[in-house]
Amino acid sequence: MRNIKLEIEYDGKDFNGWQKQPNKLNIQGEIEQAIKQITGEEVDLIASGRTDAGVHALGQIANFKTNSKIPIEKIPYAINSRLKQSIRILNAEEVEDKFHSRYNCKQKTYRYVINNAKQASAIYRKLEYHISNDLNIEEMKKAANYFIGEHDFKAFKASGTSNKSSVRTIYDITIEKKDNRIVMEFTGNGFLYNMVRILSGTLVDVGMGKINPENIPDIIDSKDRTRAGKTLPPYGLYLVKVEYK
Amino acid sequence: MRNIKLEIEYDGKDFNGWQKQPNKLNIQGEIEQAIKQITGEEVDLIASGRTDAGVHALGQIANFKTNSKIPIEKIPYAINSRLKQSIRILNAEEVEDKFHSRYNCKQKTYRYVINNAKQASAIYRKLEYHISNDLNIEEMKKAANYFIGEHDFKAFKASGTSNKSSVRTIYDITIEKKDNRIVMEFTGNGFLYNMVRILSGTLVDVGMGKINPENIPDIIDSKDRTRAGKTLPPYGLYLVKVEYK
Repeated sequence: MRNIKLEIEYDGKDFNGWQKQPNKLNIQGEIEQAIKQITGEEVDLIASGRTDAGVHALGQIANFKTNSKIPIEKIPYAINSRLKQSIRILNAEEVEDKFHSRYNCKQKTYRYVINNAKQASAIYRKLEYHISNDLNIEEMKKAANYFIGEHDFKAFKASGTSNKSSVRTIYDITIEKKDNRIVMEFTGNGFLYNMVRILSGTLVDVGMGKINPENIPDIIDSKDRTRAGKTLPPYGLYLVKVEYK
Repeated sequence: MRNIKLEIEYDGKDFNGWQKQPNKLNIQGEIEQAIKQITGEEVDLIASGRTDAGVHALGQIANFKTNSKIPIEKIPYAINSRLKQSIRILNAEEVEDKFHSRYNCKQKTYRYVINNAKQASAIYRKLEYHISNDLNIEEMKKAANYFIGEHDFKAFKASGTSNKSSVRTIYDITIEKKDNRIVMEFTGNGFLYNMVRILSGTLVDVGMGKINPENIPDIIDSKDRTRAGKTLPPYGLYLVKVEYK
């Protein structure tokens, strides 16, 4: 069988997240259906990881096995022709049999976009989080530095979720302001449930002066979700890139 | 009476253009209604110019006269609270009585956004025009230079429109490609009906090799609409900025 790796963009606001679930529009199910229409096969589409309801992807990676002989360069066009426009296969690549989108993932980059203008944007309102309070970017950058490295991020995951290890490594966080938009990018070996949205909410609290950057190590050590900032809404979050060994 | 100048952003896809018209959702009518709700007055909102159905604005300018005593800094919040989220008043300023958004306009800048990737974007599909053919940017820049200056742009306006002078001056055109997106910006003293969309369509034809840049002066001189490129769709077009003396 061929093993096909797809690069996928989607507009999160139209879906209840990546994962297949009955009676709820989801990205995995939509793409599996489209693949069935063109190959006749019931495939199991394995993503690098789920994204939650409302979260966007610019470069989600997923793979599936098939006996279909469709030329690789035609696969994006074939699948896209059966998909809603709010999901696009950007690229397809044939990979070795043992490639697994989730297990082989080395690192991911997520982006959180904030509109920091006085008024929300009419055009981009569903693609960014609007906050009119002045945010101190330099303080946010200082705080971000404390997150870099291997830490137990238990304080930064949705409470009540699994008991598996909450140790993750963050390789880099960049925060840039251009005009009124603040773009935060987080690269790490993996992220816990809601982790990027909670890190972003914590950095916003720092930017507003509610949390002192020097207190971040203490908040990490506390492993106490209530000490971190709020979970920012999903529509400001983008899975930008997934990288493999 | 006070004369209030508004800076306005709107998502064109939700409206049948700026101009007030019965039974069709339009931006002017929506804002006039919101102003009526907060001031009790039937105002006449004068824009720098109409935008067509589907065209976006990042910085439309319009003004109205009022006896209302609402403090100027509260006006954007007050109007926005009565508006759909797809229209936002970004700023309000009190200007001298004789200020007129249309008559006093010195220059305008429009932007046309093209996605030149192989596949359309799932996220930005309603905010840019997708064309997968490779476009030669250097040739497009050469062609754009021929448009700069004062010309009779009759070949670049929708046919069947008014007989008024079609002489306009273009001060500058910039074309930039970043990743897969091509952003063209046009600054001039005014633009004819559909003119920016036809200029953009003509530049796309140049980029595809259908029109030679050196033929642009001849196409201008012909005053023949059929010699210019097609009218690109409205959803890639943005009124970016309106400037005054």
